[in-house]
This record gives sequence, C-alpha cells and structure tokens, in this order.
Amino acid sequence: MNKSDLIRAIREKQSYLCVGLDPDPDRIPAHLGSGPEAVLAFNLAIIEATQDLAVAYKPNLAFYEVFGSEGHEVLAATIEAIPAHCLSIADAKRGDIGNTAERYATAAFDVLKADAVTLAPYMGRDSVEPFLQHAGKWSILLAATSNPSAQDFEFLGSPPLYEQVIRTSQTWPGAERLMYVVGATRPELLAQCRAAAPNHFFLVPGVGAQGGDLKVVSEAGWAPRLAGGLIVNVGRSILYASAGEDFAAAARQEAATVQLQMAALLNRTAI
Amino acid sequence: MNKSDLIRAIREKQSYLCVGLDPDPDRIPAHLGSGPEAVLAFNLAIIEATQDLAVAYKPNLAFYEVFGSEGHEVLAATIEAIPAHCLSIADAKRGDIGNTAERYATAAFDVLKADAVTLAPYMGRDSVEPFLQHAGKWSILLAATSNPSAQDFEFLGSPPLYEQVIRTSQTWPGAERLMYVVGATRPELLAQCRAAAPNHFFLVPGVGAQGGDLKVVSEAGWAPRLAGGLIVNVGRSILYASAGEDFAAAARQEAATVQLQMAALLNRTAI
Repeated sequence: MNKSDLIRAIREKQSYLCVGLDPDPDRIPAHLGSGPEAVLAFNLAIIEATQDLAVAYKPNLAFYEVFGSEGHEVLAATIEAIPAHCLSIADAKRGDIGNTAERYATAAFDVLKADAVTLAPYMGRDSVEPFLQHAGKWSILLAATSNPSAQDFEFLGSPPLYEQVIRTSQTWPGAERLMYVVGATRPELLAQCRAAAPNHFFLVPGVGAQGGDLKVVSEAGWAPRLAGGLIVNVGRSILYASAGEDFAAAARQEAATVQLQMAALLNRTAI
Repeated sequence: MNKSDLIRAIREKQSYLCVGLDPDPDRIPAHLGSGPEAVLAFNLAIIEATQDLAVAYKPNLAFYEVFGSEGHEVLAATIEAIPAHCLSIADAKRGDIGNTAERYATAAFDVLKADAVTLAPYMGRDSVEPFLQHAGKWSILLAATSNPSAQDFEFLGSPPLYEQVIRTSQTWPGAERLMYVVGATRPELLAQCRAAAPNHFFLVPGVGAQGGDLKVVSEAGWAPRLAGGLIVNVGRSILYASAGEDFAAAARQEAATVQLQMAALLNRTAI
C-alpha cells in the first residue's frame, strides 16, 4: 500500500483509524476460551467487523511473543487476515546494527508479510536503512511517544531528540518510506513534528485509554495534502467495547463512532 | 545468576567471554544442512564446545525470527542448552510502553527463560521498569553502541545521550539489575561510561569482526571490584572458525585463544 493508495483509502473510507490489535487474554470475551486460539478468533472477528471503518491494523508483537512459537503463528494468521485495503503494521519497535536489521526486516516484511514495521531510532541510520530498502513497505520510526517517560530521553537537547530524529532521518536514502510515531498525549509536539515533517504520515497512539483527544490531535498534526497525514491508533476502547458474545458488534459500533468523528474532521478541512 | 555468581564465574573460568549466537544459515557448515534444525544443531555444538571458556551466550533474536515460529522453538531450545554457569542473554533490544514492556519481559524471562535481555532506552523509564521488577534477571540497556551510526543520536547533547542514559537509569528502582551495552569500537567512550557507572557490568560488542581490540577495551572499561565488570561478546570469529566438520573444535580453539588473553588481562589487574 503506497502513499497514494493510503490517501485514497482515507478519502474513500472517510477514516484514518488504525485498530490496535493488542489482545489481552484476561479481557477477551470468556466464551472464546483462552490461549492463542482464543486470541486468533478474537482478532479475526475484530478485523471482520471493522475493516470498512479502519485504514490500518497494528498488532503489537509483545502480545504475541508471550505465547512463544504459537504466538508467532497467531500473529502471522492475524496479519494474513488484514485485507489489502488496510495497512498491516507490525508494532515491533526493533532497532539493531545493519546485519541484524536486515534480518528483522526479513522477519517483518517477508516472514510476517506486514506492510509496515515500527522501529526505534536510538542506534541511528544503519539500524534503519535495511528496512528502507524494501520497496512497497513502510518503516515507522519512533519520534515523540505517548508514554509519561518519553521525556526522560526523547525531550533532551535543543532541538529535542525527537525532532532531531525526524529531521535527520529525512536525509536518509529511502526516507520516502518513513512514517513517524508521534503520541497523542502531547498535542503541542504533534504540531512541532508536523512542521519538521510536512510530507510524512504520522502514526498516532494515545487516543482513548491514554488520554489523547482525537479532535485536538487532528488539528495539531494535520497535513492537508496527505488527507490529514495521520493514522490514529485506537486499541482498548474498540477491542473491549463488550466482554460478551456481542463483542464484535460492539467493537464495530465503537469504531463507527470514531470514524464518524474522523469523517467530520476530514470534511471540515476539505472545505 | 546474580552479580556475585557472575564475578565468581569470571574468576573461576578466567574469562569474561560472551559467545554471540547469531547463526547465519549461509555460513553454517554445509554438512549440518540448512534451515532451523541446522541452526539448532550448530548452536548446541558451539555451546557444548565452549561452555567452560565462556561466561555468557548471547543469541540475537533477529537471527531466529527470520524462521518464524520454528525459529522461536530453536531459540528456546538454544537458551535451554546454555548451562546454569553461563548467563543467557536474549539480545532483543526491545523497548515499549509499560503494559507492553511487561509482556516483553514475560516473553524474555518466563517464556524463553533467558537470564538477561537487551533493551533500547529511547522511550525512557516506564519502558524499562517492568523488566527491572524481575528478581534474579538482568536488563542490559543500550548506551553507546558499536555501529558507525551510533553517532547519529547517541552522541547528541552534553553530556551525550549515551551518558545521560547511564546516569538517569541508575536512579530507577531496580537499577541494581541493570547492565549497559557499550561498544568496543570507541574505547574512549568505554572509559567515560565506566566513570558514569562504576558498579555495573558492561556488555561489550564489537571486538573482532567490527574492529574492537580486546586489550584496549579491557583497559578502558575495567572495574576491578567486579572482576573487570566486562562481558565481551565475540561472535563471527568463533562461530565460523571453520566451515568444515571440525567447526566445533575450531570454535573451541578460537574461544580458548580469547580466554587466554582474558586470563592474562585478569591476572595483570589482580597484581
């Protein structure tokens, strides 16, 4: 899914919703059972119920790695179930030296067949470049994250580290395949990051359970030429909208509520 | 393996060698075959042949993730084969927000049963703290890495980011369970990091194929009260000492050469 496909999907679906597939076995509806099979059944039902309302799905690898090799199979089957009109994002936050990075890229793009992978920038260019060589794939670099401790290191320096990550990485070969993670919990940073990267998509976690507000976030990070340029992740409020047998319908209803807000924001800007 | 066990192992074995288990299917002796089974057979032979000469083994997860779920099984079996008198380090470089970090900790410490895991510090304290709550386990935080691009971000600021990572993280609860990754390719940084963390072990990659020199590194980063306080990783020169059927014996010979140099360095300092 290239940039124009993504922009088209946002316009057609009137949505820039990413559904975070971080299934917590303790919160999956009891009738599905427990363990990796239950997680897969849950994911498939969520994807089926929301795919016309979402432009992306983001499974977080930690939630699968706890199940060992079975978890890997569930993850691969989950990514396979994400339709081609939605971006599949392996939320892996990998980052290692070149010869290792090549293997992580293979694992994400060729083995798991994800369209995109999240990466940590700490080790610099040679830890990211092997990912950027994959045509048709996206690398989503952590910039300003949504967690309270983001300020420990990401905010250091002047300009702050997150801004230096955004500015420096845009000079790397293949930078057109970059997106950035910019959290929803500090909207003032979104505006600052948007100024530093006017032509790149941002993956925005932190709306909902973590406290970020969709309207505020959308105003702060908007890139009109990219149909907003935002992919806003919502996880728990959709996944666990109901703990009963109606969980998929409830997830759909919650996703539809978010999508309606997004449609209004898209249309307001279009005027 | 707690700190005093590790110091005792270094003294008894007269070694601070970590063998990096990053098996490249293209370089594994042909008679072992190819694919995940060959990797496992290779790893088991290397561990068997070197365990009295090494104090740690460090499988890099990327080299297993390329094999999907089978790779996870090979990794788990490899870690299981590492004897209790050696530290097993899952080189994962994970880093994510709190509720995700808890799951990565479970995956590394409880599912894979590794003694230690490498972590990226970018997202700050709450991405590391869940690992530090695991008694009897080690968290090894990236500080100054050995790759050329380390300078892109790790060197920014004054004091540089890598030093701020070391200083700040020592104030976190459970900091006694921290080690740091400090690369061998810039020995002057090792001395600077040692000054910032006199009581913590350093995992030192970059000796051998990446160009770092054992003697120089040992002098720069030495912590006498910790039997040197260094765990020096050597990978390719041991793993691929021979491509023939004698690969394990050749690996042992190469590891023994390194161990002899380490014994000399340990004894010189003890005088």
